Amino acid sequence: MKALRLERWHSDPVLTEVPDPKPGPGQVVVRIGAAGACHSDLHLMREFGPGQLPWGPPFTLGHENAGWVHELGPGVSGVEVGQPVAVYGAWGCGTCGRCRLGIEAYCENRLGAPAPGGGCGLGMDGGMAEFVLVPDVRHLVPLPDGLDPVLAAPLTDAALTPYHAIRRSWAKLYPGTTAVVIGIGGLGHLAVQILRATTAAQVIAVDTRNEALELASRAGADHTLLAGPDTADTVRELTDGRGADAVFDCVASKRTVALGAASGRMMGDLTLIGLGGGAVPVQFGVVPHELSVQTTYWGSRPELEEVLDLAARGRLHAEVTTFALDDAPEAYRRLEAGEITGRAVIVP
Amino acid sequence: MKALRLERWHSDPVLTEVPDPKPGPGQVVVRIGAAGACHSDLHLMREFGPGQLPWGPPFTLGHENAGWVHELGPGVSGVEVGQPVAVYGAWGCGTCGRCRLGIEAYCENRLGAPAPGGGCGLGMDGGMAEFVLVPDVRHLVPLPDGLDPVLAAPLTDAALTPYHAIRRSWAKLYPGTTAVVIGIGGLGHLAVQILRATTAAQVIAVDTRNEALELASRAGADHTLLAGPDTADTVRELTDGRGADAVFDCVASKRTVALGAASGRMMGDLTLIGLGGGAVPVQFGVVPHELSVQTTYWGSRPELEEVLDLAARGRLHAEVTTFALDDAPEAYRRLEAGEITGRAVIVP
Amino acid sequence: MKALRLERWHSDPVLTEVPDPKPGPGQVVVRIGAAGACHSDLHLMREFGPGQLPWGPPFTLGHENAGWVHELGPGVSGVEVGQPVAVYGAWGCGTCGRCRLGIEAYCENRLGAPAPGGGCGLGMDGGMAEFVLVPDVRHLVPLPDGLDPVLAAPLTDAALTPYHAIRRSWAKLYPGTTAVVIGIGGLGHLAVQILRATTAAQVIAVDTRNEALELASRAGADHTLLAGPDTADTVRELTDGRGADAVFDCVASKRTVALGAASGRMMGDLTLIGLGGGAVPVQFGVVPHELSVQTTYWGSRPELEEVLDLAARGRLHAEVTTFALDDAPEAYRRLEAGEITGRAVIVP
Amino acid sequence: MKALRLERWHSDPVLTEVPDPKPGPGQVVVRIGAAGACHSDLHLMREFGPGQLPWGPPFTLGHENAGWVHELGPGVSGVEVGQPVAVYGAWGCGTCGRCRLGIEAYCENRLGAPAPGGGCGLGMDGGMAEFVLVPDVRHLVPLPDGLDPVLAAPLTDAALTPYHAIRRSWAKLYPGTTAVVIGIGGLGHLAVQILRATTAAQVIAVDTRNEALELASRAGADHTLLAGPDTADTVRELTDGRGADAVFDCVASKRTVALGAASGRMMGDLTLIGLGGGAVPVQFGVVPHELSVQTTYWGSRPELEEVLDLAARGRLHAEVTTFALDDAPEAYRRLEAGEITGRAVIVP
Repeated sequence: MKALRLERWHSDPVLTEVPDPKPGPGQVVVRIGAAGACHSDLHLMREFGPGQLPWGPPFTLGHENAGWVHELGPGVSGVEVGQPVAVYGAWGCGTCGRCRLGIEAYCENRLGAPAPGGGCGLGMDGGMAEFVLVPDVRHLVPLPDGLDPVLAAPLTDAALTPYHAIRRSWAKLYPGTTAVVIGIGGLGHLAVQILRATTAAQVIAVDTRNEALELASRAGADHTLLAGPDTADTVRELTDGRGADAVFDCVASKRTVALGAASGRMMGDLTLIGLGGGAVPVQFGVVPHELSVQTTYWGSRPELEEVLDLAARGRLHAEVTTFALDDAPEAYRRLEAGEITGRAVIVP
Repeated sequence: MKALRLERWHSDPVLTEVPDPKPGPGQVVVRIGAAGACHSDLHLMREFGPGQLPWGPPFTLGHENAGWVHELGPGVSGVEVGQPVAVYGAWGCGTCGRCRLGIEAYCENRLGAPAPGGGCGLGMDGGMAEFVLVPDVRHLVPLPDGLDPVLAAPLTDAALTPYHAIRRSWAKLYPGTTAVVIGIGGLGHLAVQILRATTAAQVIAVDTRNEALELASRAGADHTLLAGPDTADTVRELTDGRGADAVFDCVASKRTVALGAASGRMMGDLTLIGLGGGAVPVQFGVVPHELSVQTTYWGSRPELEEVLDLAARGRLHAEVTTFALDDAPEAYRRLEAGEITGRAVIVP
Repeated sequence: MKALRLERWHSDPVLTEVPDPKPGPGQVVVRIGAAGACHSDLHLMREFGPGQLPWGPPFTLGHENAGWVHELGPGVSGVEVGQPVAVYGAWGCGTCGRCRLGIEAYCENRLGAPAPGGGCGLGMDGGMAEFVLVPDVRHLVPLPDGLDPVLAAPLTDAALTPYHAIRRSWAKLYPGTTAVVIGIGGLGHLAVQILRATTAAQVIAVDTRNEALELASRAGADHTLLAGPDTADTVRELTDGRGADAVFDCVASKRTVALGAASGRMMGDLTLIGLGGGAVPVQFGVVPHELSVQTTYWGSRPELEEVLDLAARGRLHAEVTTFALDDAPEAYRRLEAGEITGRAVIVP
Repeated sequence: MKALRLERWHSDPVLTEVPDPKPGPGQVVVRIGAAGACHSDLHLMREFGPGQLPWGPPFTLGHENAGWVHELGPGVSGVEVGQPVAVYGAWGCGTCGRCRLGIEAYCENRLGAPAPGGGCGLGMDGGMAEFVLVPDVRHLVPLPDGLDPVLAAPLTDAALTPYHAIRRSWAKLYPGTTAVVIGIGGLGHLAVQILRATTAAQVIAVDTRNEALELASRAGADHTLLAGPDTADTVRELTDGRGADAVFDCVASKRTVALGAASGRMMGDLTLIGLGGGAVPVQFGVVPHELSVQTTYWGSRPELEEVLDLAARGRLHAEVTTFALDDAPEAYRRLEAGEITGRAVIVP
C-alpha cells in the first residue's frame, strides 16, 4: 500500500510503497477512512532531532484516524470486521495505573509502551496510508451512528486535546464565569464549541486573524478579540475586573502565555494546550494568587468516547478541508503556510 | 496600651504606647491571648517599600491572633464578652463573591477592602498589643472547647495557609499516593500533621537541617530527606518512578521550586506556599505533563474553623516558643537568625 | 398598600389593605415588579394546618419576587434606591455554616431564622403586594443588565429549585449520559433548559400531557415520552440498557417516583424536587446499586446569581402568564385547575 | 484438591474433592493463602433459591482471597509464578464503561459477565480450596511488600466494601464533620479504621454489643454508642444538633436504617452497606432535606489497590480468626452464631 512516511528527522515526509500490515495476536488492522494532518507533525519534520524523543523515524505519519475494522488478529473480540471505528492514538503500556483508566497519553511505564509518549503516527506507523495496524483492540472506539469517519478523524486529537483540558476545568466554569480560548485554529475552533456544549461559561475567543475570529463566532463565542496590547485589559472589563476563570491557550507561544497569565483570575486555570514553546513563570505576586498553570497532552480513551458522542449529536463539528493521500504533502505545505481553515484531513 | 508597630518601611518595629481601641458600630475589640510572629513580617520589615503594596506603615504587627472578646460595638451580636475567639485575619470587602464564601484572602473588590490583600497586622493594626480592633464580627471564629489561645493563634496563619493548600489537593491524595513537604519550619511542621490527619498519602519531608527533619518525623512524616542534588531522584524511587502527587513548597526559593518541579508527578500538584521568590517556568516538555503549578495565599474562614477543630481534637499541634510583648523584637531577631523551633508566639 | 394574604390555614388567600412596610436597621423595602404564583402555595392553602410547620398565617403570599430597591433602612449599604433586584426568599439565621455559604434554605439554626424552613412569602410577608420588606440586604441579588423583573421573579424559585438539583448532579452528566425530567410544568420546563445550558447530557422529558411535551421540545429536550407503563423500558432503550444517570422528578408523586427508581442507572441520581408526597424505598436489590436518592429544597443565594446570569444571557427563559394583583386569586384558581402554561406571575 | 462447595440452594456447604484447575488462555491459577468467610455466604446458604439470581450452585465458596500465582495460562503476562496477589472477586464483562474503569462490581453488560452480579465464590468457583482459577489476569492485584495473605484476604471484601462507600463520601467528611458507623463486625471495625486513616471526621460507632463497641474504640472511634431508643438524639447532641454528615450502615436492617435516617444531616449521606433487608423511604419532609440515600455493592479494582496500600502501611488491620479448610463448616457455624470477633479466615 502507499503511505506518507517520515523517513528521518529534519525532512519532509515522502509517499512510498510499504507492505500491507497483517494483524498478529490481539491486533487489528483498520482501513483508513480519514487521517488528520496536525501542526504537531510539522514540529516533527522541522524541530526534533536524534535523541530528543524516545522514538523516531522511520514511521508513517497520521495520529488522527478513523475508518473501518478490516482484519482481526487471533484472539481478538469485541469488534467486527466492517465496523466503523476511531483510533485512540496514545498507545501506552496498558497496565499502569493511568493506562488502566484509559489515560494512556500519561502512561507511567515507559518501558512498557511501544513508543513512549507517542503512539499511532508518533513513532509507530500511523494512518496516512490505506491501512493502519492497531496493536490492541482497546485502542478502538466504535463510531456512534451517523458519524462520518472524515469528521471523526480530526476529533481524535484536535477535539480530544482541548476537550481533556476543558473537562478538567468544568468545576470552575459555572454560569457567571468566563473562559478564554487563545488561537482559533484546528484545536481552538473545537475548544469554543466544546465550551458551549458542556458549560454555560461566557466564551471569549482571541486570535490575530479576523477570519479566525469569524470562525470563533460561528462556533459560538460570546466575544471575539483581535489580539493586541489591550487584550488582557479587555478580558478584565468583560469579567467585571475579575479575569478569566479558565484560559485555554491553543498556541502557547511566549506572547500568548503572557496574555493568559495576565488575563487569569485568582483561583482560575491557565492551561497550555499548544506547543508554541512559551513558559509561564509561576511565582508569588507575579501571577494571580492560586491561578493553576499546567500543560496538557492529548486526552483519555473515555474522553474520546465523550467527544464522539458530542459530534454524533451535532454539538461538535470539525471544519475540515479534505485531501487525497497523494496530496498529503500539499496539505502540510498549506498547513504550514497558514492557509487551512479548520482541519486538513487526508482521505485515502 | 503598648503595641509593636512598624512605623515605616525598611525598619525594625518598635514598642510604643497607643490609645486603647474603641469599637464602632459592628466592630469588636478582642483582648489578645497570643499573637504569632511570622516570617512574612520579616519580609515587610526588610524588603517592601513605598508603593509596592496598596497599604503600608504605620500599623501594629501581628496577623495571627487569638484571645477573648473584650468589647462589642453597637449592633454586634453573635459573640459574647469573654468568649475565646480566633481572629480570621484576611479582611476583605465582605461582599464580593469570594468574600461571601469566606475566602476573603482572595477578595476581588480591592476598593472595598480596608487594606487590599492585607488585613489584621498587614496594613491594619494587628495583635501585637493588649487589644486588637476587629472591624466586623464575621472575622471572629469561636475557639472550640479546650483550645488554648496560645496554641490557637499561630494556627490562624501557620496552619491555615498549608491547610488551604493541602485541602485543595485532597482529591489527588488517596491511599497509594505521595505528598512532599519542602521546608519544615513554622508552616511545614503543621503541613506534615495536616497531611497525616486528613489524608492517607505517604508523606515525605525535605529540609536542609537535621533538626527540622526530626521535627518532621515527630509530626508524622513517613520519610525525611536532607535536601541535596539527589532529592528528586529519591522522591521518584519512593514513588515507583511516578513522582509526588502533590508537592507543598513552604520555602519557594529558586532552589526549592526546581526540586518541586523535578519531583512532581504528571497530573499532580505543585503548590508554592512560601514567599521565597522562586518561579516555576511551566512549559510543555519542561515540567511533567499536567502538573498544576500555583501559588496560594492564606486560607478561608470556613477552613480556619476546620483547622481549629483539628487542633481541639488533638490532630494538630503547633510547636511554639513564647515571648512576652516586651520581648517581641527579640522574637523576630531569633526568627530571622533561624533559631526558633516551630512558631514564635507573643503573649501580652 | 394592597396585599394578597393567607389569613388562616385551610383557606383561600384574600386581597386586603395593609400598611406600607418601613425598613428598620439593616432592612430594605423592595417595590415589587413581579411575584410568581407557585404550586406550593396551593399546598399551603389546602393541606397544612396548625402545628405542622414552625410558622403559619397570617402572612402575605409570594415567595418568587423581583423588583426595585425602594427604601433603605439605617446602616444599609451595597444597594441603591432604584436598583433592580431579585429577592432570595429562603431566609435563614445568616450565621450558621450553611447560611454563611448562602445555603439558607438549609439553615441549621432554626431558632435564629425568622420563619424556620420558610422565608419570604412563607411565614413572613411575601411579594404579592406593592412592596415587600426584606430583613437583610444579603437577600438581594442585583439583576443583570437587561433582565426584566417579570421574567426574573419566577426564576427565584421555579428555576432556582431545579437548578440546585441539577447542579449537584453535574459530575454525573458528561457527554454520553442521560438526564430524565419528570413533569414539564413551571419547574420542569426550566429544568430542561438548565440541563441544555449547563451539560451535554441527553435530555428525556416525561409528562402525561402532550402540550407539556411540546413545551419540553421547545425547551430543548432530545426525547419526549408520554408517561405510561413502558416509560422506564423506553428510558433503558434510549440508554443502551443502562438507565438514566440522573432523574429529576418535578412531581414526586407515588407514581412518578416509582418511574424514577425504575429508570435510574447504577451509581446515578434520583432527585425528588416536587412535593407530590411520593416515597422511594431505598433497599439493596430493590433499587439499582448506588442510585443516590434524595429530596432537595429550593437553592442557595450564589446559585440564584448563576440562574440570573443564565437568563440574562438568553440561556434560560421562563414562560409566564401575567396577572394583575387584583387577579391573583384567579391566577391560583387557574393554576389549581392545570390551566396555566409555564408560570403564573403577578404584576402589581 | 479439596474444596468447600455449595452444592444446591438452601443447604450447608460440603467439603468435597474436585479436580485441580488448569488455566486456559489468559487465565491464572492462584494457590490460596487465605479465604475469608463472609456473612453474605450465609445469605446464599439460607435465603436464596432457584431463579432469584442469574447464577447458582454448584460452586466453591470463598469470595475474599489472597495467595500466590501458581500457574499461568497461555499468553498471560504481567504477573510471575510465586508472586503474592489478592484476587479482585467482582468479575464483570471487562469491556463495558464501568469495567473499563475497574468498577466490575457494577458491570453493565450482564450477558458478558461470567456470573452476572457475582464472581469469584459467587456463582464461579471461589477460594475455599487449595487453588482458584482466575479467568483473567486483570483480576489480580499484587500484594505490597510485607502484607500477609492471611491479612490481605478479608480486605478484598470486608475492607473494600466499606472503603468504596466511605471514599465516595470523602468530600462531605472534612474536619468538623461526623461519620457514624452502624454495626461493628467484620466490615464495621474496618470502616472505623478507614475513616480514621482517610478523613479527619469525628467517628461515632453504634452497636448492640459492648464487645463490638470495645473493638470500635480500639479501631479509633471517637464515640461509641450502645444502640437504643435515644441513639439518634445522642448523635444530634454530638453534632451540635446538625446530625451526621455520613452514616455507613453495615447492618441495614429495618431498625438500623431508621436510625440512620434519623441521624443524618441535611445534605449528608446515608449509605446502606449491609444486606439486612431494611428500606429507607425517601420522601420530602420525612428524611432530612437532601440526605442522599443509597446502597453500595463491593468496590472497584483501583480501590482494592488503595485498601492494600493502607494495610501494608499499617493504617488498616483486619482482626481475624483463622480456621483450617477442614474446619470451614465450623467457621460458618460460629459466624452464624455471632461468635466470631473480626473476620473468620480459612487457611488451606
